[in-house]
Amino acid sequence: MRYALYYWPGIPDRGEFVRLALEAGGAGYEDVARLPGREGGGVRALMRRMEEATVRHRPFAPPYLGAGRLLIGQTANILLYLGPRLGLMPVDQANRLWAHQLQLTIADFVAEIHDVHHPIASSLYYHQQKREARRYAGHFLAERLPRFLGYFEQVLGANARGRGYMVGRALSYVDLSMFQLIGGLHYAFPNAMARIAADVPGLLALHQRIAKHPRLADYLASERRLDFNENGIFRHYPELGP
Amino acid sequence: MRYALYYWPGIPDRGEFVRLALEAGGAGYEDVARLPGREGGGVRALMRRMEEATVRHRPFAPPYLGAGRLLIGQTANILLYLGPRLGLMPVDQANRLWAHQLQLTIADFVAEIHDVHHPIASSLYYHQQKREARRYAGHFLAERLPRFLGYFEQVLGANARGRGYMVGRALSYVDLSMFQLIGGLHYAFPNAMARIAADVPGLLALHQRIAKHPRLADYLASERRLDFNENGIFRHYPELGP
Repeated sequence: MRYALYYWPGIPDRGEFVRLALEAGGAGYEDVARLPGREGGGVRALMRRMEEATVRHRPFAPPYLGAGRLLIGQTANILLYLGPRLGLMPVDQANRLWAHQLQLTIADFVAEIHDVHHPIASSLYYHQQKREARRYAGHFLAERLPRFLGYFEQVLGANARGRGYMVGRALSYVDLSMFQLIGGLHYAFPNAMARIAADVPGLLALHQRIAKHPRLADYLASERRLDFNENGIFRHYPELGP
Repeated sequence: MRYALYYWPGIPDRGEFVRLALEAGGAGYEDVARLPGREGGGVRALMRRMEEATVRHRPFAPPYLGAGRLLIGQTANILLYLGPRLGLMPVDQANRLWAHQLQLTIADFVAEIHDVHHPIASSLYYHQQKREARRYAGHFLAERLPRFLGYFEQVLGANARGRGYMVGRALSYVDLSMFQLIGGLHYAFPNAMARIAADVPGLLALHQRIAKHPRLADYLASERRLDFNENGIFRHYPELGP
């Protein structure tokens, strides 16, 4: 099966959680919107596929994945589909539910991270909601960041026989998403992450270890990997992260 | 299987999406935190079960479901588990993924609805973020409400052979959640819903039809059903919904 990933070009964001699974799983895929227009790529191709699907199973927003005749939306849903096909999900039912539950909790966290710079409306620019963003960021860094990371650190520690993986005893899409999450937080909030480092040693070690996974190390060094930047979810605005 | 639902007493919120599935599916269940303390209920029981699970599969937040030895968190994940067991999910894989995708899109919408009255921090009271809430609500009602409801109306219409159901040709948990969503929006934003009514006739009809489902009609008339109120996600603050 050759997959087609549809996501906004230029920002890693939610598409990257899917891309990491495709790369670590060694899947063949087109990154459609990042292909040149003359090869059928670009934002136009992204929108066209969504519009074509108007009649049946149209996604609300990118990312979505073409897999044969299926068009699958919602990041965690895509990973639920890809997990068993790419060997990135535990085999027993209890751990599959658990992996998905953690992925959904990561998704909740990512939505809150987005809102740090867009607390009022996604349709406004950051500079139009800067005052509210500063107030949101204060609560986020004091309350939500430690709560989510403390939770995930506890989950990792409780999986004592897991050899450092989040779920079960092998690499899963949850580890890949946690890698991306920690990387994004380092980028966006370096000071807050430095302050919290001693409380989340397991997650920081996981972040470093995942980067050395052979397929991922290749990918991360390639041009396919997108850097974090100020158009995406993980933004570094010094005024928001004292 | 007898289930145990764990959710905050006194507010419908995310627990209600699970409760509706249990009720429509005719499942036996305890609504643990709503039992009296002397019968092992109350918020204390809610917290205790979460703390007991510290070592393994501890949920981040309610709702969670006890099912035998499993403790399952995240609303959409619970419904993914319950769906096939209660006959509330399509049988073919493509429609199962699609149902879950829609449920996750509902969850995204619910999170934005929550933020209408809490755009800055859940740890603050509404009156402490009233100014930001008014600004958020303006964008929400003008942009997000029509966008989400328009999408779901289109999904419903595209399921032309579905006899008025969101997915496939039979009642699923997605219909139940849509019922709750529309009811909550009517409660919280009666004026905006009146203005948009002509654009979403299918969803409004679905809302009325689901309420007449025999098991649900019984449930809705019972004391087990919780009313919307200003401690929950769907709040009616006239100043936010002109």
